[in-house]
Amino acid sequence: MNACIAELQRALGPDIVKTGDDIPVRNSFDQTKMAPISPAALVLPRNVEQVSEALKICNAHKQAVVTQGGMTGLAAGAHPREGEVALSLERMVGIEEVDVAAGTLTALSGTTLQTIQEAADHAGFLCAIDLGARGSCTIGGNVSTNAGGNQVLRFGMTRRNILGLEVVLPDGTIVRSLNKMMKNNAGYDWTQYFIGAEGTLGVVTRVVVMLQPKPADIQTAVVAVTNTEAAIRLLRRAQSALPGGLLVFEAMWQEFYTIATGIMGLNAPVSPDNELAILMEAPGTRADFETFLAAAYEEGLVLDAAIAQSRAERDRMWALRESVYEHHKYLPKQVGFDISIPIARMEEAVQALRAELPSVMPGTQHVIFGHLADSNIHVNVMPPEMPDGMKHKIESVVYGITARLGGSVSAEHGVGQTKRPWLNLSRTDAELALMNRIKTALDPNGIMNPGRVLV
Amino acid sequence: MNACIAELQRALGPDIVKTGDDIPVRNSFDQTKMAPISPAALVLPRNVEQVSEALKICNAHKQAVVTQGGMTGLAAGAHPREGEVALSLERMVGIEEVDVAAGTLTALSGTTLQTIQEAADHAGFLCAIDLGARGSCTIGGNVSTNAGGNQVLRFGMTRRNILGLEVVLPDGTIVRSLNKMMKNNAGYDWTQYFIGAEGTLGVVTRVVVMLQPKPADIQTAVVAVTNTEAAIRLLRRAQSALPGGLLVFEAMWQEFYTIATGIMGLNAPVSPDNELAILMEAPGTRADFETFLAAAYEEGLVLDAAIAQSRAERDRMWALRESVYEHHKYLPKQVGFDISIPIARMEEAVQALRAELPSVMPGTQHVIFGHLADSNIHVNVMPPEMPDGMKHKIESVVYGITARLGGSVSAEHGVGQTKRPWLNLSRTDAELALMNRIKTALDPNGIMNPGRVLV
Repeated sequence: MNACIAELQRALGPDIVKTGDDIPVRNSFDQTKMAPISPAALVLPRNVEQVSEALKICNAHKQAVVTQGGMTGLAAGAHPREGEVALSLERMVGIEEVDVAAGTLTALSGTTLQTIQEAADHAGFLCAIDLGARGSCTIGGNVSTNAGGNQVLRFGMTRRNILGLEVVLPDGTIVRSLNKMMKNNAGYDWTQYFIGAEGTLGVVTRVVVMLQPKPADIQTAVVAVTNTEAAIRLLRRAQSALPGGLLVFEAMWQEFYTIATGIMGLNAPVSPDNELAILMEAPGTRADFETFLAAAYEEGLVLDAAIAQSRAERDRMWALRESVYEHHKYLPKQVGFDISIPIARMEEAVQALRAELPSVMPGTQHVIFGHLADSNIHVNVMPPEMPDGMKHKIESVVYGITARLGGSVSAEHGVGQTKRPWLNLSRTDAELALMNRIKTALDPNGIMNPGRVLV
Repeated sequence: MNACIAELQRALGPDIVKTGDDIPVRNSFDQTKMAPISPAALVLPRNVEQVSEALKICNAHKQAVVTQGGMTGLAAGAHPREGEVALSLERMVGIEEVDVAAGTLTALSGTTLQTIQEAADHAGFLCAIDLGARGSCTIGGNVSTNAGGNQVLRFGMTRRNILGLEVVLPDGTIVRSLNKMMKNNAGYDWTQYFIGAEGTLGVVTRVVVMLQPKPADIQTAVVAVTNTEAAIRLLRRAQSALPGGLLVFEAMWQEFYTIATGIMGLNAPVSPDNELAILMEAPGTRADFETFLAAAYEEGLVLDAAIAQSRAERDRMWALRESVYEHHKYLPKQVGFDISIPIARMEEAVQALRAELPSVMPGTQHVIFGHLADSNIHVNVMPPEMPDGMKHKIESVVYGITARLGGSVSAEHGVGQTKRPWLNLSRTDAELALMNRIKTALDPNGIMNPGRVLV
């Protein structure tokens, strides 16, 4: 038995430290579709002091630790490697405070995003962070991956919606700034180091979320446009002309929309003969939104549009965009990508993907969809078969196009284990050296999530 | 002659390196009102390579460096200390690119904020960062201090509006990520370390600003409310009810407003008999804004209101809020404060300040005003005389109240030299230790802006 694990058991007891068959299978894999690996031990702290104690012990033994939350990650960040001790925040659940005057919500990091969204809504606010995995992903994971999602256009990434954190450093030190004030320039904003660091610098245990005002009314529409460039023009026009701007602007290119409304049988508010369908949401009245879309139609900026007249219709429109979560029931195994492309080159990216992807194997399908306004598209590639080397072949095509157009290999899903080999396509050596200096300063023994992001 | 300065002169030449009487007086003081101190030498680089060369030399000699931009700071950050080499970015001026598709503006860090605002406006966008010193302060300084200002309510601090940076580390390494994509999770967002670090971790040389859509129309009003709590209720109501939300929500308590409309003779849109006047701005139509204010008035949430009917009227309303910049012509010498108070305790803070400030000396005046929605107020205290020790006496009262109510000693102006002694009122030892770890990792010789922020 590993000496570190023995010490963890002595210090924290069998309620907190699990080994062997007592480790639930959920802690052996995330959503990256890699073969499950059971961690050497699973630590399930109930409070921050136990997190601190666990890290102190692991650090003394130079024992590798993998942090876990909702296990919804797509870059194998929380997917254990052999011999790692998994530290899961799944028991540290709970909303500790909603401060209506400050417009903030303080929660333990194992709380799911959906729970936070519902608490915010109940208090008359909107939680700015929203993504498809909301029912399972945790706010600690959202912070650690600087999660993106559906509302980045309006509210920014997770980073822009966090006011305070409590973290535990790799040596067990607890550092806390549960700040609720929007303006606080007293020294370095150290919380920024941990947001997006994917658990490699410390463990996030508490989060102060900055809430947004809840719009009185939200309009939803599916709109057909000629191409990507037209979509960008429509985006900019909407942001200026609508007094409340836009909340959501999700693109579904023809391949994606055809599958959703074809083999998946979902309702088609606009014809699948169009190159690009956009799911748009804007705060404000339906009259204002109709006026805007009518004008855009008159100018030829929009080819067709359908505005949701009811909650049910709105849900059906969202089902189109979220149809990707059901693809596994209808389509071959996918290799998925989450890339950013400079908006000015997005049209070029779409054409290049269509031109080059079929070359990996005859009969290869693909879909392109996503957060167009944020320069972020998702590309899922489905070759008829997946022989050895096929995944790498596909990665070379997609990341080759990404690098060529000055994009990022990870727009929102993080680097984790899976994108480490490709990180130098988007970061210079000087940048990587700087990141490594911070890593070495905060985690000199390299125990936190090794093999993810950097080393 | 200092060996370091001699080497700087040899490496960069007399055009770049100035000493003695060749150093302009502007580089000897910022706006903190301390006695001017001429730096031992002034380095005026024309490009990033010269910044790199200069830092490499200073680092080798362990020579203290103070970074300078617009010299508008209020915490003595750029105010030289004896024996320092000043490195001014004043020659690195220029807008390099406005990318209309991406909605970004790339500029050299010595460019003034106003120049950037005008370029953004010309291209059909809004620059989210705005503060009174706009004509002189530089974007590099805004980034380094994580400047706040007038539009934080809507767009967040400077940090939330920066997509990319080029910096030079204390050892001369140039690190660049002139990212223009809203979503880029490829590794650590290292730019975050330098935003708000007040020049203590490296020199910012280029900035990529994320631009905002330009509202089609902006409404301005001055509104009278009963007290601070009523103001907060009005704020939350406006954010929800107005489709475009709010842009600006600046508070002027009675003392401030009375001076502006009394001895300074500015026009009073609402009576100075009110406890609190708010300058509000919202995107959208005047009709919508009038409807909102009329409803608020009917409920007694608003006591009186005047909406600007013209650009000239709007300017006169802003002149009320910006009257503080002329105070030195009408009032005794001020000791100024920039504090954050949790919004739920803001009413308490105002009452405590009024109760305790007169105790420092009979006849002491004060004004309270500022970015109420962001939990940030400015407090200027004017004793009839300023004997030795008076400043410290006033600081004890104001920072004592701040600490007692869980506030921050620096909401937006930064720590610089002047607030270092008070930093532990707002930061725990664990937080300060963490900040120092980062400082040590990036600036092991401690050459960058010593004596500011931390050590």
